[in-house]
Amino acid sequence: MSVLVVGSVALDTVETPSGQVSDALGGSATYFSLAASLYTEPIRLVAVVGEDFPSECLRILRDRNVDLLGLEKKPGQTFRWVGRYGDDLNTAETLATELNVFAHFDPKVPTEYRRTPVVFLANIDPGLQLKVLESVDRPRLTAMDTMNFWISSKRDQVTEVMRSVDIVLVNEAELRQYAGVRNLSVAARRVLDLGPRAVVVKKGEYGCSLFAEDRYFAVPAFPLDDVCDPTGAGDSFAGAFMGSLASSSSLGWEAMRQAVLHGCVVASYTCESFSVHRVSQLRRDDVERRLHRLLSFTQLDSTREVELNHAIQNAAQA
Amino acid sequence: MSVLVVGSVALDTVETPSGQVSDALGGSATYFSLAASLYTEPIRLVAVVGEDFPSECLRILRDRNVDLLGLEKKPGQTFRWVGRYGDDLNTAETLATELNVFAHFDPKVPTEYRRTPVVFLANIDPGLQLKVLESVDRPRLTAMDTMNFWISSKRDQVTEVMRSVDIVLVNEAELRQYAGVRNLSVAARRVLDLGPRAVVVKKGEYGCSLFAEDRYFAVPAFPLDDVCDPTGAGDSFAGAFMGSLASSSSLGWEAMRQAVLHGCVVASYTCESFSVHRVSQLRRDDVERRLHRLLSFTQLDSTREVELNHAIQNAAQA
Repeated sequence: MSVLVVGSVALDTVETPSGQVSDALGGSATYFSLAASLYTEPIRLVAVVGEDFPSECLRILRDRNVDLLGLEKKPGQTFRWVGRYGDDLNTAETLATELNVFAHFDPKVPTEYRRTPVVFLANIDPGLQLKVLESVDRPRLTAMDTMNFWISSKRDQVTEVMRSVDIVLVNEAELRQYAGVRNLSVAARRVLDLGPRAVVVKKGEYGCSLFAEDRYFAVPAFPLDDVCDPTGAGDSFAGAFMGSLASSSSLGWEAMRQAVLHGCVVASYTCESFSVHRVSQLRRDDVERRLHRLLSFTQLDSTREVELNHAIQNAAQA
Repeated sequence: MSVLVVGSVALDTVETPSGQVSDALGGSATYFSLAASLYTEPIRLVAVVGEDFPSECLRILRDRNVDLLGLEKKPGQTFRWVGRYGDDLNTAETLATELNVFAHFDPKVPTEYRRTPVVFLANIDPGLQLKVLESVDRPRLTAMDTMNFWISSKRDQVTEVMRSVDIVLVNEAELRQYAGVRNLSVAARRVLDLGPRAVVVKKGEYGCSLFAEDRYFAVPAFPLDDVCDPTGAGDSFAGAFMGSLASSSSLGWEAMRQAVLHGCVVASYTCESFSVHRVSQLRRDDVERRLHRLLSFTQLDSTREVELNHAIQNAAQA
């Protein structure tokens, strides 16, 4: 099942205790696309880059069969983000944001993309997210992400997007900020009350919680000895989550729980390298191997692993 | 199987966003004993109180069949702790610590307690923890907790206790402090390298991670809509964890994983009231009911719940 993502494609300069990279491929839609492409195709990317966007970055996306019809090239420079992580790899310090061509991003969904059944609105201006929702034709599944900047500056529009989608994916801190309450269950319920079927709360090294009206599921993160660079982990989570759902025969609770597990696994790989290095090289059997380990770390009954493996293989063949 | 705990019995004055209590029953050994008493008996308490210690507090412990032979009453006042929690209920601000009779606590293990098979060294001076270990006769299972104060002031003795016990239970922040590294897996391995069979990392609202030499298990916390007062949650966790192990026919990996689940459940109840109100009223069927819910929140295969329930009932009958 095809997946449409609208978000940023960027060049990131990142410093972490493990080292640094300059002008490396980044952006929410990039990480999302590379992760989702492990599960289904085509992944249809709507984003904007500048004239300076390196052809090797395009090749990384094309190598994963990401459909680039919706990737506009505009006069000017590509969006750049400069950030630094200290020992606490949960929080990035933004040193510079050069929006460049992204400042006037006006996502145009190509006619060929209008009937995409799965739509993900990555973190962009909520006004643009609403515009994208209006330009697609009755998708089966829609989801969104957002960030602190939009929650404080365009709260009403963020609310409007939340009302309009099936699933809200959000960081723990941003969920708390939006709901104005620290308790995560209470905060998630405030979002559920707006209408989405599920709220997926990304908690970094603490894993993920999935809230639905009368159901709850939580999974700890895959433990890593060496977190190189967490940039893009949340967007990779979203890509694997949505890709897993798009490749599933159902969009029900069981499919969502499995999608959360896949999100955690792919996000953990993303953290193991700078930029998209690891996630762009990832193969489906890497995911399955680590998924088995995650299950053995969190599930009492390991026979379940075998069942799930069959489900994965069936999905991959479908 | 009997359990010996050495730690503090205190009177706590606590303020949280939900309200406040004054001179309410508290202390690490208190919470531990009340939680452990759900699983096995006798729980043998070695601690000290002052002449002012209220008889109703003694009754709370006696009502749970806690053996008070080792509870010394000394001239002077009982240990008092005054603390406050803000919206972030993960961290207490200590407003006052009046050690009183606890300042000269010199734990004396009664002769009748020397052959206790399960020994828990709650958070006290590591020199005293070592002394207690020397005064017991080949226990089957020993475990310890500690805190930031001892890690910074008596690090070598903390290390010595870690070398001497089977299981180290510790807060996430204190494990990081001890190991001098932020990555939890790496930090846990540094402690495992000292010799204990397992390291249990208490992560508050994020649940618990269990590390052994070549194994790992993690469980998210039971989600609470309303955290009244987290004081004693970690000590209740330890009590349920050790009580569950003491009531188990094995001390192996499977028993430890189940003990972690019980720890999370009982700790969650403790957070629902001030002081020991909830944990002292708790019954085994409350624990089982919430355990089932925790499993449904974290386990893909809910048939496992039934199996576990049988195991619990068998253990309770044994």
